[in-house]
Amino acid sequence: MRVSELGEFGLIALLEREIGITPAFPRGARPGLLVDIGDDALVTAPRTGAGIWTTDTLVEGVHLLEGRSPWRKVGWKALAVNVSDIAAMGGQPDWALVTLCLPETFCVEDVLELYRGLREGANVFGVTVAGGDVVRAPVFSVTVALSGSVPVGPGGEVALLRRDAAKPGDAIAVTGTLGDAAAGLLALKAGDVKSDAEARLVAAQERPLPRIEAGRRAVAAGVRCGMDISDGLVQDLGHIVEMSQVSARIEAAKVPLSPDLRQVFHEEALDLALTGGEDYQLLLCAPRPLFERLIAEGLDLTIVGDIAAGPAEVGVVGPDGRVQTYGRGGWDHFREP
Amino acid sequence: MRVSELGEFGLIALLEREIGITPAFPRGARPGLLVDIGDDALVTAPRTGAGIWTTDTLVEGVHLLEGRSPWRKVGWKALAVNVSDIAAMGGQPDWALVTLCLPETFCVEDVLELYRGLREGANVFGVTVAGGDVVRAPVFSVTVALSGSVPVGPGGEVALLRRDAAKPGDAIAVTGTLGDAAAGLLALKAGDVKSDAEARLVAAQERPLPRIEAGRRAVAAGVRCGMDISDGLVQDLGHIVEMSQVSARIEAAKVPLSPDLRQVFHEEALDLALTGGEDYQLLLCAPRPLFERLIAEGLDLTIVGDIAAGPAEVGVVGPDGRVQTYGRGGWDHFREP
Repeated sequence: MRVSELGEFGLIALLEREIGITPAFPRGARPGLLVDIGDDALVTAPRTGAGIWTTDTLVEGVHLLEGRSPWRKVGWKALAVNVSDIAAMGGQPDWALVTLCLPETFCVEDVLELYRGLREGANVFGVTVAGGDVVRAPVFSVTVALSGSVPVGPGGEVALLRRDAAKPGDAIAVTGTLGDAAAGLLALKAGDVKSDAEARLVAAQERPLPRIEAGRRAVAAGVRCGMDISDGLVQDLGHIVEMSQVSARIEAAKVPLSPDLRQVFHEEALDLALTGGEDYQLLLCAPRPLFERLIAEGLDLTIVGDIAAGPAEVGVVGPDGRVQTYGRGGWDHFREP
Repeated sequence: MRVSELGEFGLIALLEREIGITPAFPRGARPGLLVDIGDDALVTAPRTGAGIWTTDTLVEGVHLLEGRSPWRKVGWKALAVNVSDIAAMGGQPDWALVTLCLPETFCVEDVLELYRGLREGANVFGVTVAGGDVVRAPVFSVTVALSGSVPVGPGGEVALLRRDAAKPGDAIAVTGTLGDAAAGLLALKAGDVKSDAEARLVAAQERPLPRIEAGRRAVAAGVRCGMDISDGLVQDLGHIVEMSQVSARIEAAKVPLSPDLRQVFHEEALDLALTGGEDYQLLLCAPRPLFERLIAEGLDLTIVGDIAAGPAEVGVVGPDGRVQTYGRGGWDHFREP
């Protein structure tokens, strides 16, 4: 059935059931939600922490491979990319508003699949999809606006992972492994997924797991500089060096690669890990002993380089010992170490 | 210049200057904003009230007359429709996230005009446009996600304007005058705006003024049922009667019409006031003495009807004394009063 046959109110009623907000008005059905979908706006109980806010949009044909990504995974990912921004501040996400722009010919079953993916993600990430908007538009897009919070200390201090807080002498660390999501995108574009390893790389692309818990543990341990890796390690580290006015050096040999990535993309593995985006792992800068303690406590963290005083550049020490640097203008030159 | 020539980062830098967030990182430049645009997410100081949340999207060709509405007014309106949802709960808006979906051929000057309109609205409404997203898309749209708050009483009670709180015996009141915005849309569609009266009706359509202060005063006075009038008095009252499980009767002769509306649309004035949308006035239900006190205190409120027990229908007593009723299926029959 097309959404135009069901109509806006019919679709919203269906989504309310699907997303578990049914009927609209038994008050207090969801903890903390004082006024649910159906009124002019949502109302939530007061909370104590500082507020965190982000929004991100996926547009078909721009951010989504047309017809290539199952709608359930689009729903998951639309939420996950926003959750990752909250995780990247060291926060805990809470309320999401979802805006769907739908062509009239869009299939109702596809909307339901998308919402199933949103709901799956919401359950895993501890988020409540509290409401939103359904709008007619010529092209499909999904926009999520997400809020979250971080605790406030007794003196009013707010501990966060910021991009402008890297200091000379800090080590650089990343969570998980890098390059898997970019490899998954290559596998998807190439067509048939042939092996279990390829399937896991595709899953890393389509079903990213934002590092909420890792972000909170890092902040609790005293880490104060970090962001999520959405555009690739080198490019994202470029934001940190620019905003912190420091220089960074990565040792390529230390960048964590998954066995799947090594197996499927042997030659390109390192390049994918350095420049491939959408892993949604965390990139952190802090004194080395903090990282060593977190690693000893079992966090899947790898130290990959160091921060120094100097121009806002990212240098990568390659397998051959030569340093490739990346600055404002992109990769710009080679030089001896 | 086209946005594709400026690029995403160039455009964001320009918007930051335009919207007054420049440079990105002198911390604490705006009260309550702990982390500004440029990091993964925005961080705001803790607040004491309950949270209010809403989002609304305008799509070119669907919600906007193509090429007919100046971009500055599109910016104002994109914010105003969201502010009105917060006002309709009796709350105060605070932080806005703005997502722009832009075709590559979109003119930079038009984006700036849109942001000037957003900024004008933000100043008037007491809102901070704290950040958002700029996305490439085949069709223009603007999505605003807006938060706000309402105070919490000493016992944890939250006083709100809800749609499900109308009670038999309540009077029905509206703020301001109705039908002006719908009349303005007719004038716009007809082409040349010929008179000052028509220009004021067009302004009501393009530059609505959400009733934040009226909503807060109503709540403070004890009013607990209300919403904003975005789809027209009769249709919106239909939501209240359905969610409150009551019946409503409006006296057409009491519906407040502006002199401009009477002058320009003499014959259609009442119909525009009853069914025309986008006035963004407030529709309130409460015991009559509460309204009489608010009116005595100078609030531009008009009592237009009454709530009674009975089926969830809206009846309109016409100038001829006959009652026209409006229920689930729309206008359905005429009957004697």
